[in-house]
Amino acid sequence: MKHYFDWAATALPDESVLQVCSSTALEFPGNPSSSHRPGMEAAKRLEQLRSLCSGYIGCEPPQLVFTSGGSESNGIVISSLVWRKGRGSVILPGIEHPSLREYRAWLQELGFTVVTIDAPWGLIRTADLAAALRDDTVAVCFNAVHNVSGAVQPVHELTAAVRKHEARTGRTVHIHVDAVQALGKIPFRVCDYDIDSASFSAHKLSGPRGTGALYVRRPIEPTSRGGEQEQGLRPGTENLPGIAGFHEALSRCVPDVADRRSRAEGLKRLLLEKLSGSREIELLQDPDRMDDYSPYIVLISAAPVPSEVLLRVLSDRGFFLSAGSACSSQTAKKREHVLTSMGFSSTIASGALRISFGGTTTEAEVLALARELAEQTAMLRSMLKPS
Amino acid sequence: MKHYFDWAATALPDESVLQVCSSTALEFPGNPSSSHRPGMEAAKRLEQLRSLCSGYIGCEPPQLVFTSGGSESNGIVISSLVWRKGRGSVILPGIEHPSLREYRAWLQELGFTVVTIDAPWGLIRTADLAAALRDDTVAVCFNAVHNVSGAVQPVHELTAAVRKHEARTGRTVHIHVDAVQALGKIPFRVCDYDIDSASFSAHKLSGPRGTGALYVRRPIEPTSRGGEQEQGLRPGTENLPGIAGFHEALSRCVPDVADRRSRAEGLKRLLLEKLSGSREIELLQDPDRMDDYSPYIVLISAAPVPSEVLLRVLSDRGFFLSAGSACSSQTAKKREHVLTSMGFSSTIASGALRISFGGTTTEAEVLALARELAEQTAMLRSMLKPS
Repeated sequence: MKHYFDWAATALPDESVLQVCSSTALEFPGNPSSSHRPGMEAAKRLEQLRSLCSGYIGCEPPQLVFTSGGSESNGIVISSLVWRKGRGSVILPGIEHPSLREYRAWLQELGFTVVTIDAPWGLIRTADLAAALRDDTVAVCFNAVHNVSGAVQPVHELTAAVRKHEARTGRTVHIHVDAVQALGKIPFRVCDYDIDSASFSAHKLSGPRGTGALYVRRPIEPTSRGGEQEQGLRPGTENLPGIAGFHEALSRCVPDVADRRSRAEGLKRLLLEKLSGSREIELLQDPDRMDDYSPYIVLISAAPVPSEVLLRVLSDRGFFLSAGSACSSQTAKKREHVLTSMGFSSTIASGALRISFGGTTTEAEVLALARELAEQTAMLRSMLKPS
Repeated sequence: MKHYFDWAATALPDESVLQVCSSTALEFPGNPSSSHRPGMEAAKRLEQLRSLCSGYIGCEPPQLVFTSGGSESNGIVISSLVWRKGRGSVILPGIEHPSLREYRAWLQELGFTVVTIDAPWGLIRTADLAAALRDDTVAVCFNAVHNVSGAVQPVHELTAAVRKHEARTGRTVHIHVDAVQALGKIPFRVCDYDIDSASFSAHKLSGPRGTGALYVRRPIEPTSRGGEQEQGLRPGTENLPGIAGFHEALSRCVPDVADRRSRAEGLKRLLLEKLSGSREIELLQDPDRMDDYSPYIVLISAAPVPSEVLLRVLSDRGFFLSAGSACSSQTAKKREHVLTSMGFSSTIASGALRISFGGTTTEAEVLALARELAEQTAMLRSMLKPS
């Protein structure tokens, strides 16, 4: 599909990945829990794939649990807090993906306090996190790469602040990272970080829908019950075809992640250069810290042109981008919440557009997008002007 | 694959279903939550598929939520009990699939009482359920078709007993049915039953792994948070290719479910006739009530030959069956628990074998299985005899 700029919502599918899913379904038809030959062959293939995927993710195979996606992986970690003796506070940045942020009510219902921190320009500041840590903090959750702004968070600094706090208070804090927008896009290996768990999704990498993974450094207590699959953390017959597709997608992204990142940097540079001439379009990424953003994500605002209107016009002309996260059919209000937590006014937020690149995005597409953006924004602004 | 008799664990895949999954992934690459054209096309297809699937399942489209499988569907219902004001007791038959049974500890941790009832020969008796109902009963859960014995539970009688109890106490009881082994195998439409929720799985019908559904008569409170997809009950990007495959599988099973059932009845009759001559093999289904079992499942015991040994020998000879449920790599002890709850001694339980048929099972395969079963059991018995 041409002019698709919403890869952060979901990547365009890869036929060879789909082929691997189908052939795995046919080649390994048994249930990995069955003790006959096709069952044992499926179980063996599952463990081979776990080993291969954990190699790409940078952990030991038993630390990797396959799930149905990033949202489920986040949910497993957050909901496991219910088993903690006593309650306490959980730190969730206000810019977080709803699969983390929306657990606020649930955590409060169960007696936890939720502490929110802002992230100017999408970038979490270590000092803000340090100030939010309390004696009763039990968990800190954040995205490694923010899905809306593309901010690459300072994971090392953030975890160091938490561990320093731990040393002072003598109480352990669980650090959970949503790495859905990091894996395969920027170099990201869990073993390089002092984190306790991390979430991953296959479809963001042109892998199959309904497949993801959760890294857990040490076993955690499951909320879901009902089977001993995946160390009891994720009951249900394992989706071996999906897992094989996830592995195939990883094998296509991770080994040359640096080259792919350079390519995306080139596309982003080109887009920003072309947009820099437009007075109608404002960049919502800190211009002084452009190295701190994913090259795959550009966040702009065309305010006062409402993003929904511009998106619709662009879509009609065959250009597909997003008003922010597509993680759910969010109301404009919820989307605005993320933008205001980044420090933007609601006017600027109302015109926000997220452009995200993928493996098949070309320079020609980027140039066409820049042209369309400038033209359509100008056209819509002239229509908005009081006559 | 020839001589596959473990369809209740997972059905052999169907190439045309896999083809539908792949073509849907390519044809509808957008995220249904995105507001551009490919997103809206995906969202439209999702609702078309929901409407078609709910037709097969016998409910209204908004009552059907797509999930990652039967275990997750069960988990969503059970874990929603946490939101109930006050606690109370939950009735779970001792024969249940672990995705229900294993929530016992979780429910107890949260202050619920779990009441277990036995099911002689796998068949739940209405009088036993009625006797287990208490003033504080908040939920009753059972399989429509028991995954180990194949018992088709008297859903109408069981629900009537619960509703009568409700009328007497003035308190509502949630009735949840795991219909994973019923859908597409016996006529089962949720609208025919007075139940509050029901779980379904695609891969038991040669649909894709990692896809299932949950029927909810009225909205329930979700435990998972994080997105507004699937009425908030199931956050995460919808697995449209999987859902399309689920629909394809339903369209191949449900319309001619009666014919397919008759065919399975013929296979079962043939197998039982051939096994009836064997003194070494005991039927673990009530011989006086054979109409009360699924024609797709035959449960026998070859005790004192241990099922693991016989299964291994049969697997080596290319015959694939199960020692019970394959829902997880269960310990023999847990499997035995189900059998003793059915009224069998641990000796008989230790030799239990489940044979399950599917759409491509042939009479020739059944005859070959009967022969192998008799021969290998006799051979192993002779080896076990004290010399």
